[in-house]
Amino acid sequence: MTDAYKSLEARFRRINVLSDIGGMLHWDMAAMMPNGGANARSEQLATLDVMANELVNAPDMGDLIEAAGGENLDAWQKANLAEMKRNWVHGTAVPSDLVEKMSLAATSCEVAWRGARADNDFAGLLPKLQTVLDLSIEAGKAKAEALGTSVYDALLDQYDPMMRSDRIDSLFAELEAFLPSFTAEVIERQKSEQAPTRPTGPFPVSVQNKVGLDLMKAVGFDFDHGRLDISHHPFCGGIPDDVRITTRYDENDFTSAIMGVLHETGHAMYERGLPGAWRNQPVGKARGMTMHESQSLLVEMQASRSEEFLTYAGLVFKAAFGGDDAAWNAGNLHRLYTRVEPGLIRVDADEVTYPAHVILRYRLERALIEGDMKLADLPGAWNEMMGKLLGITPPDDKDGCMQDIHWPSGAWGYFPTYTLGAMAAAQIFAAAKKAKPEIPAALARGDFSPLMGWLGENIHGKASSKSTDEILIEATGQPLGVAAFKAHMENRYGG
Amino acid sequence: MTDAYKSLEARFRRINVLSDIGGMLHWDMAAMMPNGGANARSEQLATLDVMANELVNAPDMGDLIEAAGGENLDAWQKANLAEMKRNWVHGTAVPSDLVEKMSLAATSCEVAWRGARADNDFAGLLPKLQTVLDLSIEAGKAKAEALGTSVYDALLDQYDPMMRSDRIDSLFAELEAFLPSFTAEVIERQKSEQAPTRPTGPFPVSVQNKVGLDLMKAVGFDFDHGRLDISHHPFCGGIPDDVRITTRYDENDFTSAIMGVLHETGHAMYERGLPGAWRNQPVGKARGMTMHESQSLLVEMQASRSEEFLTYAGLVFKAAFGGDDAAWNAGNLHRLYTRVEPGLIRVDADEVTYPAHVILRYRLERALIEGDMKLADLPGAWNEMMGKLLGITPPDDKDGCMQDIHWPSGAWGYFPTYTLGAMAAAQIFAAAKKAKPEIPAALARGDFSPLMGWLGENIHGKASSKSTDEILIEATGQPLGVAAFKAHMENRYGG
Repeated sequence: MTDAYKSLEARFRRINVLSDIGGMLHWDMAAMMPNGGANARSEQLATLDVMANELVNAPDMGDLIEAAGGENLDAWQKANLAEMKRNWVHGTAVPSDLVEKMSLAATSCEVAWRGARADNDFAGLLPKLQTVLDLSIEAGKAKAEALGTSVYDALLDQYDPMMRSDRIDSLFAELEAFLPSFTAEVIERQKSEQAPTRPTGPFPVSVQNKVGLDLMKAVGFDFDHGRLDISHHPFCGGIPDDVRITTRYDENDFTSAIMGVLHETGHAMYERGLPGAWRNQPVGKARGMTMHESQSLLVEMQASRSEEFLTYAGLVFKAAFGGDDAAWNAGNLHRLYTRVEPGLIRVDADEVTYPAHVILRYRLERALIEGDMKLADLPGAWNEMMGKLLGITPPDDKDGCMQDIHWPSGAWGYFPTYTLGAMAAAQIFAAAKKAKPEIPAALARGDFSPLMGWLGENIHGKASSKSTDEILIEATGQPLGVAAFKAHMENRYGG
Repeated sequence: MTDAYKSLEARFRRINVLSDIGGMLHWDMAAMMPNGGANARSEQLATLDVMANELVNAPDMGDLIEAAGGENLDAWQKANLAEMKRNWVHGTAVPSDLVEKMSLAATSCEVAWRGARADNDFAGLLPKLQTVLDLSIEAGKAKAEALGTSVYDALLDQYDPMMRSDRIDSLFAELEAFLPSFTAEVIERQKSEQAPTRPTGPFPVSVQNKVGLDLMKAVGFDFDHGRLDISHHPFCGGIPDDVRITTRYDENDFTSAIMGVLHETGHAMYERGLPGAWRNQPVGKARGMTMHESQSLLVEMQASRSEEFLTYAGLVFKAAFGGDDAAWNAGNLHRLYTRVEPGLIRVDADEVTYPAHVILRYRLERALIEGDMKLADLPGAWNEMMGKLLGITPPDDKDGCMQDIHWPSGAWGYFPTYTLGAMAAAQIFAAAKKAKPEIPAALARGDFSPLMGWLGENIHGKASSKSTDEILIEATGQPLGVAAFKAHMENRYGG
């Protein structure tokens, strides 16, 4: 190991600790902070961003990275160095003052979004959202030059390293070749089948919370290293040793909160499973948001909506909520959780119509980033595309183009990872079941450990030591593709 | 304004934002964090400390401070520069690696203390506590050299700028000249008077919490800029724009939680009242812990235990807890809250016996810091001195020398500020009532606004623009002294 490499490890350790601190403060902002703390919090987050950026941009960083390579590094150290270089290229592309401006604008817009969404006031949000968009484009341009990509691809690369929009275009085209007609068939078929019985509420928040905690335990969440709280928009935050997940409750419908908890628990298990020996080094981080979403969707969509797990979940629900037997049996829950119905809200969408929500956002954000559309035209374009893709028109912007926190918080280029993640989830779950045939029977007992054991070894523990495709090829035999997702769709929803 | 001064303001802004971030993480550690997050949190807090220390210790800082002075600064800027210099002298005295070691050791010891205290395991805590003590002495020695004081005074100066132990010795001697015989007289007299009726529980945590929130509102706490939560040891944390106070609940006794809330609300009001124009500058910070404790004790001891306020509080308690009329009338509550009885626990002590708890800690920590006593001998020395000063011997270390978080967290030299604060509180409250005779009648209506208005102008808003004594002289006509405290004791407890 060279001195240069050792010195880089020390620097990136500090950079990553600053980013971890930002993770805790972001969680607090969403789950705990009173509104009056927003300005001070913006300055705190901006200061952390700027200081981390200053460290990444240190004048001698490029020389150190150059000097650190060589044959004396092992595979993980080499991968760590490559990730350092990736961080450095992204970091040096954007000047410090722009980093600070973006951080301040995003925090302030995120707070404004909470109020504006509640008031259905897109015009009120517009100025702050425009600032966030303009600054994101400015940063994207700078990164595009450094990476040799388009502006949109440079933003995408922040969330899914090495993913490019031409690949997304072709994957999404494959999806679009079968999803619309498949969706129509499924809806038609479900009309003629037994309708699910919807359990009747109210479902007290305290009981939903307890069910959420019980199911987190079943998945394997370690409460000595994490918490469950409430926020407007469910998310998984914090750090690997202290994962903070959140959900939101509706006393008339327990489905959304519980599936939200399972989704975020999937994220949390990935974070917890990252290799402890590489904490606070770039190579020890999750591989990217496609892989991250694959882990949340694997738990939420693949495992938790399987008839096997629903057998177990039904017993938990019945014990917690009481009520009618018919509602809680696995067959009924399976019909309930696989009901396909186009809706307004992405996070509430079933897995068949979900990709349409993502394709819509992917197209609109590309148009906005590439300057093909004005932000003021977003509500109209959104509503028109919802009509085309899902056959419904949002009655307002609250449940239309203002429903997600991503754009207000500056996360342009993030949305595609949800559907890429869904594809990866199907591919990984199929491989896991092939390698460990006992997985479904264990899920029926509420036991995720065979699945989590396999994921720990084949996905979580590899962190960023390889690319998404390399990890997928080792784990599943194939790079990211549509086939397994399509097979899963046909298996679960086909005639 | 010189360029040097402007540059110093920018630097100290960043230093203070880092310290604010630490404040949020400390709150989280005590109120939210699962135990498994402790190691990562230690590293986060240490990184913040080290980075702030590096900024304070920048090689050109001394020259900048030298160059920044002059006639073109206004009074607040001059005071700000003086505070910057104070921070710089404290900061440069201690080498970075010692700062980091101290921060790591304190965080780790604080976590160990929680478990060890529950297990009554002083021997188990000893190694970590010894490390914290040794590092504190090492830092104290370095600071003593820079400040030209004794080691203990250098530690004290961190919490109460410009206070020295010879002054404490003389103030405490004045206290000791009257307190022991006075305490004995009060106890004797109370035996012959009507005993207070103790309201009978249980008092559900949720109801105590609601009462706490109601009384915080009465004091003037702004819930758009703060929260109330639970922790092992009640404290006031966070930042002026987002004050996080905590308490702990006992379902069999509501007194401790509620008075804890009022105490911390006093701290919170001081933080909230600091001048917004000087946020994140040294001069905009609270003057020190003596002044801080004066504000918490003014609310808790002076105002909230007055017969006037207890008239209002009785109505709140009765509406919340129900039960017997006799327990909730102001006369009974006043007897209850002014009952003098030597006890084991400092935070539960009445105001007459409280100074003895502080004098004990002050003597023991001086002996430990000055090397006159071994840490292993602390439990024995503690129990012996408890016998001498208060006539009781702790049955265990849990409720003896392990009851406070201060020493495990490295806060040696902090304890005297509680009793110095109690003296200042009496002095300030007397002056406030003289200036605004309507204060007692307003308190009887649950209205703290006349008192808080006066405090805002005469104490809170002055922040660190003047010394503790200068602020006290302007507000009360006198430097810090024992007279008003003695008068208060005689007035409330005398025959």
